[in-house]
Amino acid sequence: MYPKASKRGNSMPSSPIRRLAGAARDAERRGTRVYRLNIGQPDVPTPPQAIESLHHITRKVLEYSPSEGIESLRVKMAEYYARFDLDIKPEEICVTSGGSEAVLFGFLSCLDPGDEVIIPQPAYANYITFARTAGVTIKPINCSIETGFALPPVSEFEKLITPATRAILICNPNNPTGYTYTREELEAIASICETHNLFLFSDEVYREFCYTDQPFISVMSLDNVRKNVVLIDSVSKRYNECGIRIGCLVTRNEEVRANVMKFAQARLSPPLIGQLVAEASVDTPQEYMREVFNEYLERRNFLIDRLNKIPGVYAPMPMGAFYAIAALPVEDADEFCKWMLEEFSWEGKTVFMAPASGFYCEPGHGKNQVRIAYVHKIEYLAEALETLEHALNVYAERR
Amino acid sequence: MYPKASKRGNSMPSSPIRRLAGAARDAERRGTRVYRLNIGQPDVPTPPQAIESLHHITRKVLEYSPSEGIESLRVKMAEYYARFDLDIKPEEICVTSGGSEAVLFGFLSCLDPGDEVIIPQPAYANYITFARTAGVTIKPINCSIETGFALPPVSEFEKLITPATRAILICNPNNPTGYTYTREELEAIASICETHNLFLFSDEVYREFCYTDQPFISVMSLDNVRKNVVLIDSVSKRYNECGIRIGCLVTRNEEVRANVMKFAQARLSPPLIGQLVAEASVDTPQEYMREVFNEYLERRNFLIDRLNKIPGVYAPMPMGAFYAIAALPVEDADEFCKWMLEEFSWEGKTVFMAPASGFYCEPGHGKNQVRIAYVHKIEYLAEALETLEHALNVYAERR
Repeated sequence: MYPKASKRGNSMPSSPIRRLAGAARDAERRGTRVYRLNIGQPDVPTPPQAIESLHHITRKVLEYSPSEGIESLRVKMAEYYARFDLDIKPEEICVTSGGSEAVLFGFLSCLDPGDEVIIPQPAYANYITFARTAGVTIKPINCSIETGFALPPVSEFEKLITPATRAILICNPNNPTGYTYTREELEAIASICETHNLFLFSDEVYREFCYTDQPFISVMSLDNVRKNVVLIDSVSKRYNECGIRIGCLVTRNEEVRANVMKFAQARLSPPLIGQLVAEASVDTPQEYMREVFNEYLERRNFLIDRLNKIPGVYAPMPMGAFYAIAALPVEDADEFCKWMLEEFSWEGKTVFMAPASGFYCEPGHGKNQVRIAYVHKIEYLAEALETLEHALNVYAERR
Repeated sequence: MYPKASKRGNSMPSSPIRRLAGAARDAERRGTRVYRLNIGQPDVPTPPQAIESLHHITRKVLEYSPSEGIESLRVKMAEYYARFDLDIKPEEICVTSGGSEAVLFGFLSCLDPGDEVIIPQPAYANYITFARTAGVTIKPINCSIETGFALPPVSEFEKLITPATRAILICNPNNPTGYTYTREELEAIASICETHNLFLFSDEVYREFCYTDQPFISVMSLDNVRKNVVLIDSVSKRYNECGIRIGCLVTRNEEVRANVMKFAQARLSPPLIGQLVAEASVDTPQEYMREVFNEYLERRNFLIDRLNKIPGVYAPMPMGAFYAIAALPVEDADEFCKWMLEEFSWEGKTVFMAPASGFYCEPGHGKNQVRIAYVHKIEYLAEALETLEHALNVYAERR
């Protein structure tokens, strides 16, 4: 006899991507080439001066940094936000271990167990884990592939508001849909938060990847929710340095900041070396940023065009980030993705996609959808999509 | 009007060390030299080959590492444990962002909200924050300065066990007391865990700093609790690289491991560069380890000898780590420590110590005690203790 692991852990969903990871490795072991469209690990190199900064570290002790992060990094981050016309002071920034820790600290510092947070779905799957960790209930609100995953009208949000509702969380530009909210949508959300006195968590880690003609709009710029907004951010995708685990939480709400500091102090400090790399990254030349942007833009255009040419497939044009959701002519995308990895191969190739079910907070939604990350070169995407088209044909004729 | 921060955050104690940090900075601004005996940031240099490993990083992308940590690091860690005759497999190790995250993952993966964990006090203060984060209740069991903070007898533990008790947590060697548990004590604790089917969390981050003649004993070596033990570890103190935030959770309990992986996956990965540094540190030459050990041993001997020569001060000899608890001839060490920073100086000097009250889970304990970290050179300690002796004289004659 030995003690049983926690029920909270047992009941936590393991993501469908993770469940399929073993099948993908098995396929590779069988000699199949697996095109990995499943995760957001870009193939883009980290800015060279970020990596070179490691070569210039001469300090003798790799000591704790301040719990809120190194001051010079927070100053740099404030400068970065100023480029987006956001008036953010270094002391309003708490550096975290990736955007992930910022989400957790945000939930812990703003919400109590039993509180409810409204999140448009499909949504980044790990919000669910952090909500469960914090004892918080997610109330999903459906966005539809038919409208390109635009936000539902305000009235739909208001239907979900109960006395326990304490926050709305948006991810803008959105992972997994690529949707980027319009000013009208953001103002509508802000007005709900103002009226009902709700926190507005805004995950903007894909800020740099916004392909509309309009400048990116952050809810940090809306005056009526200055103390409602908790910004979640990360350098991971911005500078292609996901591994250094540097993000931040930004808020002008002093009470929330005081709470965030308690959780930040408990874990002592964010990673020191990652902070040095992040600091060296903020001044990445615009040329690098533009090249990466243009590369994603081309990949997006290619991907969506090619996807929609496959009979029965529909993918709305994402306006930001580097993900797209596609509806496939299958009943159950979980089954289809598994089948592609376990049973299918064409000319020794197959494709690993993320079933979209993992991005919905409740079962039964998005059954025929997959998420595709366009973090690979166009030639790679082209071969993957050709393989997908063959797979859909074989799958349709299978029975 | 704007939304209120969480009650869980508001009610979280901010540690007395943190509360005094501002007073210490103010004293420095006034030109006073503040001897900082308050925190465990060693002055010892990081092993040079660990820092040099940064200079050899040539990869082009600083990408996500696996959620459980880089395999080669986990292999190295297993080799490290083998030197202590601990049979630990790489797959039993999950790399975490410092020992801190290992504590949190341990609580989340083993315990549910409302569960109780018994912790000998005084205890590392951040266990309280992580317990609150996980919704877990700490049941403290008192250790007394008169017995040098030895564990109370088994019968005292059994008095605290309720149907909600799910775990015992020990820190060995102990922060803040420096106590190192004997084989008899560890076997007694293990037998309680076996009898009552409890998890045994063992925080062993100070394993290398054990000054008894006996080899260090880990509960990982006790056969009757193989699936009860959850080991918390960190490279921070071992290799003087607190800033890289690399620790680990080790358990042979597969169910717990499956839960840990879910929390690990939600935060994507531990810091990549820290892992590379940690891997380069495992083979730190024994000469470095021995020098650091001898340095701490001398500091300890000096500190305890000198402390006990101050009239009215009593400090038991710590057998491990680099902390000591001292009882001072004052009624309220919180007040005294504050007074030293705000009002006292002698020849332009004062001392910053951590009031021990912050290490007790309930108010009213250890009122006249302070924790002193001996992470500075003997000359530094000598001047600090001379200053302390003067301060105690002035304080006694103050009214």
